[in-house]
Amino acid sequence: MADYSPVKGCMVIRPNGYAVWENIQRNLDRMIKETGHQNAYFPIFIPESFLKKEADHVEGFAPQCAVVTYAGAKDLEEKLVVRPTSETIINSMFAKWIQSYRDLPLLINQWANVVRWEMRTRLFLRTTEFLWQEGHTCHETPEEAEVETLKMLRVYKDFAENYMAMPVIAGLKTPSEKFAGAERTYCIEAMLQDRKALQAGTSHNLGQNFAKAFETKFQDRTANWQFVHQTSWGVSTRLIGGIVMTHSDDKGLVLPPKLAGLHVAIVPISKNPAADKALFDVADKLAYELKNPEFTGTLGYTITSKVDRDDQHSPGWKFHEYELTGIPIRVELGARDLEKNQVTIVRRDTGVKQFIPIADAAKTIARELGQMQTDLLERAREIRKKFSFVVDDYEDFKKKLDEPGGFLHAHWCEQGACEAKIKEETKATIRCIPLDAADRLTPSVEEGKCIRCNGKSMTRVIFARSY
Amino acid sequence: MADYSPVKGCMVIRPNGYAVWENIQRNLDRMIKETGHQNAYFPIFIPESFLKKEADHVEGFAPQCAVVTYAGAKDLEEKLVVRPTSETIINSMFAKWIQSYRDLPLLINQWANVVRWEMRTRLFLRTTEFLWQEGHTCHETPEEAEVETLKMLRVYKDFAENYMAMPVIAGLKTPSEKFAGAERTYCIEAMLQDRKALQAGTSHNLGQNFAKAFETKFQDRTANWQFVHQTSWGVSTRLIGGIVMTHSDDKGLVLPPKLAGLHVAIVPISKNPAADKALFDVADKLAYELKNPEFTGTLGYTITSKVDRDDQHSPGWKFHEYELTGIPIRVELGARDLEKNQVTIVRRDTGVKQFIPIADAAKTIARELGQMQTDLLERAREIRKKFSFVVDDYEDFKKKLDEPGGFLHAHWCEQGACEAKIKEETKATIRCIPLDAADRLTPSVEEGKCIRCNGKSMTRVIFARSY
Repeated sequence: MADYSPVKGCMVIRPNGYAVWENIQRNLDRMIKETGHQNAYFPIFIPESFLKKEADHVEGFAPQCAVVTYAGAKDLEEKLVVRPTSETIINSMFAKWIQSYRDLPLLINQWANVVRWEMRTRLFLRTTEFLWQEGHTCHETPEEAEVETLKMLRVYKDFAENYMAMPVIAGLKTPSEKFAGAERTYCIEAMLQDRKALQAGTSHNLGQNFAKAFETKFQDRTANWQFVHQTSWGVSTRLIGGIVMTHSDDKGLVLPPKLAGLHVAIVPISKNPAADKALFDVADKLAYELKNPEFTGTLGYTITSKVDRDDQHSPGWKFHEYELTGIPIRVELGARDLEKNQVTIVRRDTGVKQFIPIADAAKTIARELGQMQTDLLERAREIRKKFSFVVDDYEDFKKKLDEPGGFLHAHWCEQGACEAKIKEETKATIRCIPLDAADRLTPSVEEGKCIRCNGKSMTRVIFARSY
Repeated sequence: MADYSPVKGCMVIRPNGYAVWENIQRNLDRMIKETGHQNAYFPIFIPESFLKKEADHVEGFAPQCAVVTYAGAKDLEEKLVVRPTSETIINSMFAKWIQSYRDLPLLINQWANVVRWEMRTRLFLRTTEFLWQEGHTCHETPEEAEVETLKMLRVYKDFAENYMAMPVIAGLKTPSEKFAGAERTYCIEAMLQDRKALQAGTSHNLGQNFAKAFETKFQDRTANWQFVHQTSWGVSTRLIGGIVMTHSDDKGLVLPPKLAGLHVAIVPISKNPAADKALFDVADKLAYELKNPEFTGTLGYTITSKVDRDDQHSPGWKFHEYELTGIPIRVELGARDLEKNQVTIVRRDTGVKQFIPIADAAKTIARELGQMQTDLLERAREIRKKFSFVVDDYEDFKKKLDEPGGFLHAHWCEQGACEAKIKEETKATIRCIPLDAADRLTPSVEEGKCIRCNGKSMTRVIFARSY
């Protein structure tokens, strides 16, 4: 799905990987627009002085910046940073656009590439350049900003679970893990098959930090000038890495049907398409039947299928290829199937073969695609459940992190110093403080003692090693 | 639709401008995929040494490059150019992907941002950063590469005329105007309302120039290694500038219906939505009727409409606003209209008011949207015709360029030196050598004398001042 490029840490997204990104974009873009946001586009370059206007922000991002120092064959008077994120350049425009409370809320989203210079990279999960969307909103009151921050967190959770079939825990980041410049950062955290955590999306309540730095002000309902209250939120091509590492198996990729570019590969088993016309006629008819709008209505997408007419490769080679690339359903159709008036349907995730009368094939495939979407989520939930532990002893904590790994629900004293020590000693970080009781193994409020220092704690947090 | 940003020559595309870009993308992306291409994504950074591998290419682009010299708080060992175009970085990957004639043709497209440092910029028409698509293909034979180059030129012409309602002349660039590194560059050229030319899209036959520089080779059908034959082709956010400067009038923007984000603004003339419920009911019913799939089938898009419920502004203010932003159809609905069981329909391009029975309103709007698309193209064709001249005298040539301007069909001796002199003396360049007899005012083959030097010529070319 991707290759490393000749440029350090930058990836090339190949067509089958990019097709997944296009499906992510199309669906998420619709959800972002349905919640009232509009897309716009801001420059890739940020004057260095802008980045410095918000103290925490520059401290967090400066070490990761790529900087343009000359252009048009001349040294630049002011250096330009290739955007690592766009709060600053966007605020410089918001400050001009916003005058009055009537201009609020301002709800903007951008699809763009960003660059963060990384020491250790990994395809999709951590790359120097990545593609993402970044939402940026302005509000009249702190309450509205908080509502927006949590609303978009819920959109991300909905998308992760119901499109990517990747269960996530929605939670609050600790102060040490929050976005550089935010008041509060919320996140969705997934557990991958190797039991490491993946921060799959973040939603920040920025308070008035950037508004103050850029003078983003409005006249309120009593004609007083006030700073706007802001949010920002983003997900990236990292989600593709999440899909790969949640669902893949030894045979290759497994794609959730809602995000697969091609849903059904129909393979007539024939070395001679001319002689075996009957096989191909059945295959073509099935491909046509799969477009039935009734299925589109039920599944939320139109089933795409392909009749494999390639006469260079063996059926075995083709089956292997469709498994490798994660096509959700494979249909095999040989001379013997035709005699029995049936087709063979194979689901990518289970590998189970079903022999189905030709007349019922389309209906069965549509049902299996829907079922596969549900099953993938359920299976991933089971794995997360299996590797989530309530831990109260630091030695046990360290042992479990090594083997089997997973999410450790443990008490913490709320001191940054203790959090840092734990990270140093175990390489585990606090992934989040879960928001939902359903994501906890113990009551939300539960008196306890910090896993490391025995300090007082009122709730458990989730520790894990992560990407 | 756009603002200048604090970064030299970079623009901010505002939501109403970006919505047009999204419609351009959606339609053109479909046409690119229908012709067999797949999307992928390549890094924004190009090692400086890559750019230097093709001699003409580096000579053409080096003066326009923005260069990253340090990143991650360290000076880079090799400087990185922010892509001005991607032939080089893409060839470095193609060289790895292609082994055999079986891997050909390779048909790739990328949607991306690019940066070219410009001295004089103008919103949408010439900006330092712009958004575009760039197609990159590899073929077995020079003939296949030429077919591809011309095929995509035709796709661009089709898109410009049938979506943007902007008539264009498809033609060949002279050697001095071709892409740096290409064998031949084809283009589509539009005439804007100020009678200047706009190069709206280009399609390049790259021959084996980049293949040789990057060793992009394949084993042919006789097991010999050969360099691939390549093409590249692109259109950009410049197209939005083309739409603006082809169709706008004194009242503001005029958007061709096929690319408008919102097609119909329905304005109930009421200061009290609660009291005037009947007006709003009729408006809502009309909005519903406009979604009729029959209209979608005829027009190729689903009609989007909005019932204006704003109670802050006067009807006059609203009409003005919808004209300014180019909404194709405005529907006015007042108490007197309701009495007469009619609505008032106003087309943005003509300003003509029609009073139509409520029962016929949806059908009439659908018809007018289709008609407006055709009329806009026809009107632009008329303007181009009016300002296209056959010119044989150099003094007349210079005079016409000043007033009224336009496309001058003139003879040229095919000498670059003469072309350069004409540019120096008149600021006019050869826009193209037209491919189609229909775009000429005289026969395709016509003996004549160069407009400047009286040298021999066998065909006329098109001169104009341009953006």
